[in-house]
Amino acid sequence: MKTANVKAFGTKATDAPLKEMTIDRRDVTAKDIEIEILYCGVCHSDLHTARNDWGFTVYPSVPGHEIVGRVTKVGSEVTRLKVGDIAGVGCLVDSCQTCESCKKDLEQYCLTGFTGTYGSADKHLGGFTFGGYSEKIVVDEHFVLKVPSNLDLAAVAPLLCAGITTWSPLRHWNVTKGSKVAVVGLGGLGHMAIKLAKGLGAEVTLFSRSPGKEKDALVLGADAVIISTDSNQMNSVSGKFDLIIDTVPYVHDVNPYVATLNISGTLVLVGYLGGLEPFLNTVPMILGRKSIAGSLIGGIAETQEMLDFCGKHNIVSEIEIIKMQDINEAYERMLKSDVKYRFVIDMASLKE
Amino acid sequence: MKTANVKAFGTKATDAPLKEMTIDRRDVTAKDIEIEILYCGVCHSDLHTARNDWGFTVYPSVPGHEIVGRVTKVGSEVTRLKVGDIAGVGCLVDSCQTCESCKKDLEQYCLTGFTGTYGSADKHLGGFTFGGYSEKIVVDEHFVLKVPSNLDLAAVAPLLCAGITTWSPLRHWNVTKGSKVAVVGLGGLGHMAIKLAKGLGAEVTLFSRSPGKEKDALVLGADAVIISTDSNQMNSVSGKFDLIIDTVPYVHDVNPYVATLNISGTLVLVGYLGGLEPFLNTVPMILGRKSIAGSLIGGIAETQEMLDFCGKHNIVSEIEIIKMQDINEAYERMLKSDVKYRFVIDMASLKE
Repeated sequence: MKTANVKAFGTKATDAPLKEMTIDRRDVTAKDIEIEILYCGVCHSDLHTARNDWGFTVYPSVPGHEIVGRVTKVGSEVTRLKVGDIAGVGCLVDSCQTCESCKKDLEQYCLTGFTGTYGSADKHLGGFTFGGYSEKIVVDEHFVLKVPSNLDLAAVAPLLCAGITTWSPLRHWNVTKGSKVAVVGLGGLGHMAIKLAKGLGAEVTLFSRSPGKEKDALVLGADAVIISTDSNQMNSVSGKFDLIIDTVPYVHDVNPYVATLNISGTLVLVGYLGGLEPFLNTVPMILGRKSIAGSLIGGIAETQEMLDFCGKHNIVSEIEIIKMQDINEAYERMLKSDVKYRFVIDMASLKE
Repeated sequence: MKTANVKAFGTKATDAPLKEMTIDRRDVTAKDIEIEILYCGVCHSDLHTARNDWGFTVYPSVPGHEIVGRVTKVGSEVTRLKVGDIAGVGCLVDSCQTCESCKKDLEQYCLTGFTGTYGSADKHLGGFTFGGYSEKIVVDEHFVLKVPSNLDLAAVAPLLCAGITTWSPLRHWNVTKGSKVAVVGLGGLGHMAIKLAKGLGAEVTLFSRSPGKEKDALVLGADAVIISTDSNQMNSVSGKFDLIIDTVPYVHDVNPYVATLNISGTLVLVGYLGGLEPFLNTVPMILGRKSIAGSLIGGIAETQEMLDFCGKHNIVSEIEIIKMQDINEAYERMLKSDVKYRFVIDMASLKE
């Protein structure tokens, strides 16, 4: 298969900083789109993968799955986009497209496993996929999104992961005008959850451990902020919420949040992978028909729906633009939660 | 308020056996129905309450909330039933009827707390309500069910608690023809879950720890039995079920069952009140948009729907009829799971 060398930024070992490297990209097949990457958002998963925090990183690793760019080449059968269009690529670049999940536009739950934008087995070239910290990417058109032309392109990038990860549960659990939604945690995911829930017409409350986030949350669109360590404030929202989107990525007690769910309400975890400690108490769940659920990113059709919605409602992420060369420092700042609310790499810097 | 003494069977202390006693029943008010009790099912909650296992029993305690009887008197405003009709009473005899839950026919989740058939504050007479182990009961017509005339009345009694407790989640989670439903545990609740899910057209699997229950489960309508301690059998149903109804009343590991849920599937707990030990693992929940939920009995309209459905499909509980005087022995047998699948008291025995 014909390939081309492109510049990228990645790492070859757990403890090595990211630096410039060269990777192969395939030439477009009939259904492929080649994209010159303009911006790439920096997700916490990028950092976890680069440092092998989850134990399954394959090196060299080139992270990045919040990609916005310009179409530079299309295969002979491509119909959805054309050269010059602005395109997006999120967390998925392939799936079987034939299983029950894929047939329902739930490629993120592909029963044979989806191909992640980075770190997954590459069906075309062998080896493993490389992500958006690079000049170009080549992706099957089914997994390429159209980006609304009215939005700031750099600020669109985080919609491809942080946006869809919060949009999907909002839609699956039928959030609409007047729904009472709470968001736990104000980071990359949490700030998008507020904006998107508000865009859907919900009444939105942020749960935060620290009073310092109140002003920002209100500016982002939240109607109220509840300090989760203040029992009086927690009691004031007992039984209130139809849906809680819990974006916290580390182990935490969800029982106090369950108490704030309305009858038949759901708390959906999108950030924490692990055991629920302390023990989840089933009593309030049974007495109020409450649910605890999980949700993973979103499907391609749903991602397009979210982008179109953001175009219509002028919703983008809050970002800080960095150069590719500053990625290692950005990771250190992310570990200290020192970012409002997403780093986005201006990929032009890779050409410097 | 005018009252009448009636015979009942109850207990005056945690460690005292149940024996005959006399209780007061109010005369019917305008909206009340007086019912001569013909049969009363014996629920595990009766035993837990009589022995104060949950710590909130008020003595004297007269259990019983699976009541079938004949209407003997109606108040001046009663329209739904008339003298001579066969009537049912389940776990609820009152609620505020004005809160958001009650307005949605979810009286079991009444925001001010429903009035239980026994052991709840009695709004009419003061003191606490007395249940169905008695000659008569007087109940607001809103909480009285019509019993289909074609069914065996003794075997209808358990539908009022065991039936509706499993019917409500089957309906709430949209079980229909072709749905894949699993039931954990084959007791009073589990055997009704199998019959009702099958009646709705679902493909039904029983999870059981003991191979001995396979034959019975198939006779009850299950399509398959999976021995939950056999990892090969468990693997064979990985990712299969749309809904799992978990009727187990003691602490148990739900994680192996979560693995058998399909994408977007739900495991609903109807029996176990307490902490989920060992820790619930969020990874499969996030990777498959799976939910863990709770559910409590059902609302009055839903109970009527269930009874009508059972009438149409000729579904009743599997029972063993006992005399009122045998209740203490029956409790001992229930503790050993020595009942297929519900004791029902022939209340004529109380007249002996």
